[in-house]
Amino acid sequence: MDITCPMPRVETERVLLGHGSGGQLMAELLGKVITPGLVAPGPAEDAAVVPFEGGGQAVLSTDGFVVTPRFFPGGDIGSLAVHGTVNDLAMRGAAPVALCLAYVLEEGLPIEELARITASVAAAAVAVGVPVVCGDTKVVGRGAADGLYVTTTGLGVLLPGATVSAARGRPGDVVLLSGPIGLHGTAILSAREDLGFEAEIASDSQPLHRLVARMIAAGGSGVHALRDPTRGGLASALNELAAASGIAIEISEPALPVPQPVAAACELLGLDPLHVANEGCLVALVAPEAADAVLAAMRAGPEGAGARQIGTVAADPAGRVTARTLVGSTRIVDMLVGEQLPRIC
Amino acid sequence: MDITCPMPRVETERVLLGHGSGGQLMAELLGKVITPGLVAPGPAEDAAVVPFEGGGQAVLSTDGFVVTPRFFPGGDIGSLAVHGTVNDLAMRGAAPVALCLAYVLEEGLPIEELARITASVAAAAVAVGVPVVCGDTKVVGRGAADGLYVTTTGLGVLLPGATVSAARGRPGDVVLLSGPIGLHGTAILSAREDLGFEAEIASDSQPLHRLVARMIAAGGSGVHALRDPTRGGLASALNELAAASGIAIEISEPALPVPQPVAAACELLGLDPLHVANEGCLVALVAPEAADAVLAAMRAGPEGAGARQIGTVAADPAGRVTARTLVGSTRIVDMLVGEQLPRIC
Repeated sequence: MDITCPMPRVETERVLLGHGSGGQLMAELLGKVITPGLVAPGPAEDAAVVPFEGGGQAVLSTDGFVVTPRFFPGGDIGSLAVHGTVNDLAMRGAAPVALCLAYVLEEGLPIEELARITASVAAAAVAVGVPVVCGDTKVVGRGAADGLYVTTTGLGVLLPGATVSAARGRPGDVVLLSGPIGLHGTAILSAREDLGFEAEIASDSQPLHRLVARMIAAGGSGVHALRDPTRGGLASALNELAAASGIAIEISEPALPVPQPVAAACELLGLDPLHVANEGCLVALVAPEAADAVLAAMRAGPEGAGARQIGTVAADPAGRVTARTLVGSTRIVDMLVGEQLPRIC
Repeated sequence: MDITCPMPRVETERVLLGHGSGGQLMAELLGKVITPGLVAPGPAEDAAVVPFEGGGQAVLSTDGFVVTPRFFPGGDIGSLAVHGTVNDLAMRGAAPVALCLAYVLEEGLPIEELARITASVAAAAVAVGVPVVCGDTKVVGRGAADGLYVTTTGLGVLLPGATVSAARGRPGDVVLLSGPIGLHGTAILSAREDLGFEAEIASDSQPLHRLVARMIAAGGSGVHALRDPTRGGLASALNELAAASGIAIEISEPALPVPQPVAAACELLGLDPLHVANEGCLVALVAPEAADAVLAAMRAGPEGAGARQIGTVAADPAGRVTARTLVGSTRIVDMLVGEQLPRIC
């Protein structure tokens, strides 16, 4: 296993694996190296809203997928790429309109495997109801690209009434979670390291745009912020929301839906389920007066059948995420610093 | 040098480097493996037009960049990625509205180099006048990804009056070329293999959206088809247009602007300048009555200063591209079959 120990230095002159983990190292790389001069300052969102002619609001999101193994219980890199991009659009309150697909293929990749992954992309796009409208294919030499990398970009349109933003969380909001956590990351790790959990744990990879459409229809502008806790897990997603909105989030540890096999795998591997990646659930900050209607709307479909409240939002200390444990104490929920699960999306 | 010899078999069970060349092998991989079931049948375009709410027409294009070396005379992988995507939008008659940027970084990449490339992306985007609105960063292990790969996706809006499509070429059209050919491919090859042409040859990488805007303003719907002859060179671009439009294209070899250093490099290396990649010129099929106005509009700016007519379009034999040589004979201009210049974009 590739878990780096001791923890990598945060200041570094070279790119580390941990820079891709969705945690603190990554936030630092983005903040110091990549976004200055490139993107206008503002909250880090899963997708960008672009004013478009005719008064419409286009929403764009792009996402690279480098997961190993390429096939895993519950999905593969193709379906994951479609779901991941559709979900990033949805986290901004957008319905998907079109997808772009860019492959980097390694010389020697079996054509049969490429065809299987492409069929999976197509099936996932059909299930979502979004066309793949353009693509690109590059081939690199043997030893590069690890089989294939997929970059999907989605164009979406804001749902009527949607005003979600990572920066719109407010004191008093309730924190809702749509389903169980930890399945994707542990499924990948198990398949990758041959740990034998495969029979019990499958990735939760699924599209969430219908869930979000139900939530916005029920809660309108009361749905303040949405995030899918992928790389870095629920802990990173909550920390990002807390930082972007300048709020304090407290979650209840006993309320967290951690499936028993995930809990067992995390126990065995020394992982915190809060840091494990998900690809089929979302966390929402919702105005208290809209919470009941939004929760009911979430539960009205299969992706949100297990939806529940997991916490509340306060004003202070701004940017801080804490968890209340079973015995009533509280602990700080930090972002992952370096690398916990390599190449999970 | 990585030139494959003998030519790879066209039928294969594994991905070959030649599948990424922009030639026949690539067309076959796309046609047989990637596009069936994924994209609706239709002419292969550089970008997709997507109907958008409010009556607008969104244009999307995505492009992966894996060029080695990452820095070369005339540009780097960052500026190339911006120009390439802006140009793909322009080839569909669109003005750029927003860009998405996705990195796959290799562990160990110097942060300084990442910062330099990102600054180059930013500078190129500012020069084009298009914002980078979203991005994604993944990190893969040492030995994968060859430093870094960049995937850029562009959102554009159709220019007023633009009706360009690879399928709109018509018998009687004139074939216009905006500038010299062969610079990018020979610059990359020289830098990559240390051949010593670097002092004389720099990539032509540049954005072409302003050139296209002038052409559409001058020629309107008389501008039938546009293509930038990147991978596979002018030969592949013309063959793609001939196939998509069901037309015959005849070009005049003496009319082709091949800079002397490019001609010398091609002579030395046994390359056909028609197969060498370009990143800063375009070829257009234009109605004869609009040709003079369009040519004048092309020449009114620096990207089109060397614009000229290089050929004509006939009805038969449909799909065939020929070149009339200096001595008056004609030869067939084929698409590249396998790989001529590895990793040029």
